[in-house]
Amino acid sequence: MSPQPLVAAMEGFTPEGLAVDLPFRVERLMPFLHSLQDRGVTTVVFAGAVTRPRLDPALLDPATAAMLPRLMQAMAAGDDATLRAVIDIFTESGFAVAGVADVAPSLLPAAGLLAGTLTDRDQADATRAAAIVAALGAVDVGQGAVVAQGLCLAVEALPGTDAMLAAVAALPPQLRPDPARGRGLFYKASKPGQDRRIDLPTLGPDTLRAVAAAGLGGVAFEAGGVICLNLPDMQRLAADLGLFLWARG
Amino acid sequence: MSPQPLVAAMEGFTPEGLAVDLPFRVERLMPFLHSLQDRGVTTVVFAGAVTRPRLDPALLDPATAAMLPRLMQAMAAGDDATLRAVIDIFTESGFAVAGVADVAPSLLPAAGLLAGTLTDRDQADATRAAAIVAALGAVDVGQGAVVAQGLCLAVEALPGTDAMLAAVAALPPQLRPDPARGRGLFYKASKPGQDRRIDLPTLGPDTLRAVAAAGLGGVAFEAGGVICLNLPDMQRLAADLGLFLWARG
Repeated sequence: MSPQPLVAAMEGFTPEGLAVDLPFRVERLMPFLHSLQDRGVTTVVFAGAVTRPRLDPALLDPATAAMLPRLMQAMAAGDDATLRAVIDIFTESGFAVAGVADVAPSLLPAAGLLAGTLTDRDQADATRAAAIVAALGAVDVGQGAVVAQGLCLAVEALPGTDAMLAAVAALPPQLRPDPARGRGLFYKASKPGQDRRIDLPTLGPDTLRAVAAAGLGGVAFEAGGVICLNLPDMQRLAADLGLFLWARG
Repeated sequence: MSPQPLVAAMEGFTPEGLAVDLPFRVERLMPFLHSLQDRGVTTVVFAGAVTRPRLDPALLDPATAAMLPRLMQAMAAGDDATLRAVIDIFTESGFAVAGVADVAPSLLPAAGLLAGTLTDRDQADATRAAAIVAALGAVDVGQGAVVAQGLCLAVEALPGTDAMLAAVAALPPQLRPDPARGRGLFYKASKPGQDRRIDLPTLGPDTLRAVAAAGLGGVAFEAGGVICLNLPDMQRLAADLGLFLWARG
């Protein structure tokens, strides 16, 4: 990778704190790809979150219009299919698609206990949560679950991690198991079979604050499959909050 | 079945509006089974909700104590395993175990549209929700999900249907798809492979009120696998609330 990457951003999703060299629109995807080729770009990395854009047919060029039915069909089939179609389009145009593991491997912690301590109960809860998330991933739903004492308190769906942890924080005490026997954990993993070059789940300091507010004992995640933003900050914060942080191998 | 059933209730879970002939405790399960045999009982039906009881070892008789490790092992393995073990214990003691389908089949609606109208979008959402609930059932999590325009808004976990629908009702508008293009539905089914003689999911008028409050368009459920309490009331209420009610075949 060049030490000076070119930054391209979809219009409407401009990144914070990062100068954009090349804005683009999906309606003009093929001219955008030609422009990357003209600038000598050979490798692309996808980063950041976008939602499905609304398309303005008036802006379409003929080459993108010809490609669009394929992309629309993939969008109707779900997020995974959409991302696979996008990767294919870039690959067919001659670009190598690199992932976080290639360009910033330190963002993907390898197996190990990164903060706090683990009980046998925590390890059993992580095993159960991993099975639940794998089952959900197979039907293209969320990448996270909350398990306490073997019981599934919540499962991540479209509204995302923050909404799920807020719902757990709001649970009346009689609807959750006695925390004295195990506070439970939030587990996060990539989807089984997902292309790891794109759309890896992400944890950060805010996740830890939400986990503490939900009364849980810690966070476990799939080693090598989940991005940790500011890991040293996360480790300090987990210790301050009395949480464990575990990259489960 | 006798037209005059004997009503037995676990202590701590006395049913409302029903006189109990025979209270019992799990610690004295074997003497309780002998007492049923002495009264000439040949068939049992399980009805109503219980939670895992706390056991008082001082109350155990020798026969129940000998059976207990098997029940504890099943309880550690989950709700499904526990219910299977309970059915096995009754069967081995010579009782036939009947289900709702045997004694009150009118509580289990067969396939058909029971109120309102269905769009193609609703039917596609029900197909997707059924796949999600089947995947969850395989890991012994909930029996329900909320899907709108193909997107999974919520999945049922330990806190149950009411908590899930309340969470959907509380979703900020930007976290859900445009209701003008399809309001979405709540879907309920029994777990794949579950013994249908025990613990079938249940819908009632309160479910419909919660579905309306969550801004959804209706309820779909597995025909023959879900109990509807007061179906005529449910049909009238669904019509009043502008909801569909669909026993999906």
